[in-house]
Amino acid sequence: MAKCAKCGRQAVIRIPYARMWLCKEHFMEYFETRVLKAIRRYGLARKGDRILVAVSGGKDSAALLSAMMRAGEELGFEIVALHIDLGIGEYSRKNREAVERLAAQLGTKLLVFDVKEVLGLSIPEMAFKSRRPPCSVCGLVKRYVINAAAVELGVDAVALGHNMDDMIAYIMKAFITQDISNIHKLGPRTESLKGAVGRIRPLYDTSEREALAYALMKGLSFNHAECPNAAPGSIEREVKAFMSSLEREHPSIKVQLVRRFYKNLASGAYRGGGGAPVSRCPVCGLISDGGICSFCRLTKKLIGRYGGPIVREWFSRVAKRP
Amino acid sequence: MAKCAKCGRQAVIRIPYARMWLCKEHFMEYFETRVLKAIRRYGLARKGDRILVAVSGGKDSAALLSAMMRAGEELGFEIVALHIDLGIGEYSRKNREAVERLAAQLGTKLLVFDVKEVLGLSIPEMAFKSRRPPCSVCGLVKRYVINAAAVELGVDAVALGHNMDDMIAYIMKAFITQDISNIHKLGPRTESLKGAVGRIRPLYDTSEREALAYALMKGLSFNHAECPNAAPGSIEREVKAFMSSLEREHPSIKVQLVRRFYKNLASGAYRGGGGAPVSRCPVCGLISDGGICSFCRLTKKLIGRYGGPIVREWFSRVAKRP
Repeated sequence: MAKCAKCGRQAVIRIPYARMWLCKEHFMEYFETRVLKAIRRYGLARKGDRILVAVSGGKDSAALLSAMMRAGEELGFEIVALHIDLGIGEYSRKNREAVERLAAQLGTKLLVFDVKEVLGLSIPEMAFKSRRPPCSVCGLVKRYVINAAAVELGVDAVALGHNMDDMIAYIMKAFITQDISNIHKLGPRTESLKGAVGRIRPLYDTSEREALAYALMKGLSFNHAECPNAAPGSIEREVKAFMSSLEREHPSIKVQLVRRFYKNLASGAYRGGGGAPVSRCPVCGLISDGGICSFCRLTKKLIGRYGGPIVREWFSRVAKRP
Repeated sequence: MAKCAKCGRQAVIRIPYARMWLCKEHFMEYFETRVLKAIRRYGLARKGDRILVAVSGGKDSAALLSAMMRAGEELGFEIVALHIDLGIGEYSRKNREAVERLAAQLGTKLLVFDVKEVLGLSIPEMAFKSRRPPCSVCGLVKRYVINAAAVELGVDAVALGHNMDDMIAYIMKAFITQDISNIHKLGPRTESLKGAVGRIRPLYDTSEREALAYALMKGLSFNHAECPNAAPGSIEREVKAFMSSLEREHPSIKVQLVRRFYKNLASGAYRGGGGAPVSRCPVCGLISDGGICSFCRLTKKLIGRYGGPIVREWFSRVAKRP
């Protein structure tokens, strides 16, 4: 039986790149310390900050919220948790329940934005009416709502639950397709711009497997199900499987990939990205890539009114609540 | 039975990204035209040029030599074929025989540089004596000899048999390891520098499978064996298998990868490479990354004399032969 490298008791998990076995208690400590170190290494949050944590209901954001609350106590920043109810049937109901239970477990306040309640249409209804793929509509709505919340609540950054394997899939997809126009958005943090609050990824160099193990060992409430709309044969999925098989022969290849990518990005080695002109939507005032933003355009088409100001007003009312 | 898209006769091969079946005759024509188009697209050779084609004995360089001779007739450039006998036992003997037969088949003169004969040691002997991995010694010697030949023979470029799958493996390895310092060398051509003749890759966007099919259909003489020293679990091999499996779902993903990579490289999107300072070896006068070049240093250690001038002199004598 393998022994914990910290206390010698029976180990339950192996950390391949560190060539180390850990027991349950020391793994949870290891995971929280790892997130704390990432926050320091990449300068993700500072004393006095308020950080909006987007919590989907899955394992990654559950692990993120828990570790961020621990890090916030240590480093002196404050957490605001936000869940978006997308209205994707049973899947969304389970996510919402899981997040509400998680917030109670961790003793944090939770904001729930219900897409159907505020905008009149759920994500599947929007996808159907607009004839767009559900993932594209969903991504657009989530990005908009999270950013609007961050602006109205006046937080310093938005924390996203993307783990290392997610990031590698995005990064490698960009290189496989050689579409590197948005590569500057794939680091551990993006800068705040006018009308857009910066995003941070505290799980940037933490693997999916470890996020899952932490959520399970810590007994965090999360929804195990995957979105029913998730595309099966996507390049991202294939990359994840490939990189995990490469990792068996080369144990630290994944961690090195994200860390060196970050360094290359920071040193300006990739000039592909960052050049897109940024403006503000004349309707809602948030970031746009020119003219009325895609969220305002989509909602105008679907519900006859610009959705941007509706979402902003909803969060503005929430922000004023005691 | 699938029919040839050009003549309607029975087809023998499918071109996945073109969604096209071809008969033997039209496939050979297609392959040669593809190489011709690559030469034009990437500006690899012009009328009046003399091009040194490095021929290893394998399928890729056999296909390359044949297609380059056809392209040379069409575009008006001249071919000089070079084979390096590495002295790797039976493998090298078979390669040399295959290349000599190939040169006779195609009716071209062939230069054979015998490493053991000229320098006194074969590649395995050099690897053993220097305690370096054979692939590292072999790569160093081949690069040096090819470049020395090109300089002494006064050719305009060196043509290498790297096919699209090889290039993708090199490119993706650079991105997976995020070591992008040499990424500027992975395009379809590298510029000539002082002491270094530029290299061209006419098979840059032609797949390994097509090079093999062409060599077989054309009845070209080549050695089917792989080098006995080839590393089995390398990242390059894993990448090749992964990209070929991706291609089944996304038929043009590989061609798009190399073509877009070339465009990104040409537009300066990758700043990682190209910055290494380049100097000339004070012993042999060819390119060096500072001080005495690695080939001169290695040979001095192994045979007590600087190998650079020996190799240059050998090719200089050959060049003067009528």
